[in-house]
Amino acid sequence: MRLTKRWRVQRMTASGLVRERADELAGEEPLEVRIHGTPFTITMRTPGNDVDLVAGFLVSEGVVRSERDIATISHRGGIGATGERDYNVVDVRLAAGVDLPDTSLQRHVYTSSSCGVCGTASIEAVRKVSAFDVPGDGATVRLDHLLALPERLRAQQAVFGRTGGVHAAALFVPGGGPTDRSEPRLACVREDVGRHNAVDKVVGWALRDGLLPLRGAVLQVSGRASFELVQKAAMAGVPVLSAVSAPSALAVELAEELGLTVVAFNRGETLNAYTHTYRLRPAPTAPGP
Amino acid sequence: MRLTKRWRVQRMTASGLVRERADELAGEEPLEVRIHGTPFTITMRTPGNDVDLVAGFLVSEGVVRSERDIATISHRGGIGATGERDYNVVDVRLAAGVDLPDTSLQRHVYTSSSCGVCGTASIEAVRKVSAFDVPGDGATVRLDHLLALPERLRAQQAVFGRTGGVHAAALFVPGGGPTDRSEPRLACVREDVGRHNAVDKVVGWALRDGLLPLRGAVLQVSGRASFELVQKAAMAGVPVLSAVSAPSALAVELAEELGLTVVAFNRGETLNAYTHTYRLRPAPTAPGP
Repeated sequence: MRLTKRWRVQRMTASGLVRERADELAGEEPLEVRIHGTPFTITMRTPGNDVDLVAGFLVSEGVVRSERDIATISHRGGIGATGERDYNVVDVRLAAGVDLPDTSLQRHVYTSSSCGVCGTASIEAVRKVSAFDVPGDGATVRLDHLLALPERLRAQQAVFGRTGGVHAAALFVPGGGPTDRSEPRLACVREDVGRHNAVDKVVGWALRDGLLPLRGAVLQVSGRASFELVQKAAMAGVPVLSAVSAPSALAVELAEELGLTVVAFNRGETLNAYTHTYRLRPAPTAPGP
Repeated sequence: MRLTKRWRVQRMTASGLVRERADELAGEEPLEVRIHGTPFTITMRTPGNDVDLVAGFLVSEGVVRSERDIATISHRGGIGATGERDYNVVDVRLAAGVDLPDTSLQRHVYTSSSCGVCGTASIEAVRKVSAFDVPGDGATVRLDHLLALPERLRAQQAVFGRTGGVHAAALFVPGGGPTDRSEPRLACVREDVGRHNAVDKVVGWALRDGLLPLRGAVLQVSGRASFELVQKAAMAGVPVLSAVSAPSALAVELAEELGLTVVAFNRGETLNAYTHTYRLRPAPTAPGP
């Protein structure tokens, strides 16, 4: 299990080697998810918070909606032939009464390098299985608070600072003070070579902490807003997705339909709002002298 | 089929709406790949160059290694119930004697949002099926030429300029002049919301142009160097992978093993070289006055 790994790197310019030194690279290893002992998926991820990753993935896939739906989830299954524990395997046992995922959909689907979901099918899947009603949450967020989130996320990125090679996702929840004044509170931040994994890790953390649905929460991501991140946010009941980079067309269309607020190009001073902008409130103007 | 889509966007600051205008978003739609009529994979991609995307994907997966391995590849299969053509389906017929991909590996693998390959299994797969010997290519590239590639790629990014939301990959091939002087020639550039798709699109273009293995070529990508991009480069016989962002540990380890040169953080003035740096040559110093 390696969050990062050291490697000798040669820095070069046009005229050749400038210096050689050991640098840290983001860890990336395969994780096999087994459900009741049967292989279910394999994903490339940065090791660490694997149990949260798998729990969040099960939320995203509509398999579980509360911590009670999971009987056990652990690295236990991965005992190799030599008796060592394999930290690249997580075994899940679902609680009694929780349906196993429909594997008939999986049969002919090869796990490719890309985001491998069928948009149409998935839009229907979200409608069918989403346990939580996003539009009904009544959440709003102040624009000055929202604009501050990318910088607050960056400040927490432990691995990124060292490797420059990972994505991050953070969950900000209502501050608890008077709605209009208190800044959202950082509840959880996770990093991964895959931005979808980073989101699964924060959602899984929230599930295991009994926080779903994430009413009033903002999911801040370091990269772009893809279709699948909107889907993951919806599955966890998150009403606001904020991205540092661009959104895709399908992401915005799905958010419009599901009632999620999507903002992107959130760069501290300005942001672009795409859907359900009623949740975004201007900061109060400073009182006169 | 939409490369981009227009959407009304509200630009905001802390004090509220600044302006509202129509903006272009990167298209993202599901593409189903069928082999001999049977669904093989579904991937989210930016529409356009779909046939190249599928051809390149088949190279990456070790299914084909030359254009002759593909009998037909087209959107033909996707005729909907109403008789309209569905441009989100590509149907492939392999040539006689080409083995169908082993679907026994696929059965239990759910297509997740993340890069869904098992590292260990895939490292073995590359060793087994790679048709081309990367280490034997004898290619070298001048550092000043290599440092210029990210900017040359950016200059070609048609969709990115409009949406900010897509990745790009470009294939640079030997210039044809005296090795030491001629800059690599831009052979193909492709964009996609998924950076793996962008690479599959350029590899598929090269396959269909009869250019595999891509001896002496440099694959320049706009994002990071992941394990899977190294794998795709190796499967196409590309000896040098250059990334604008960071590499992952597994990417570097695989490249070291397969004989690929990986450079990353290629920022125009400097780059970091990780593996097989013998391919990188300093620019000749200017002759004295």
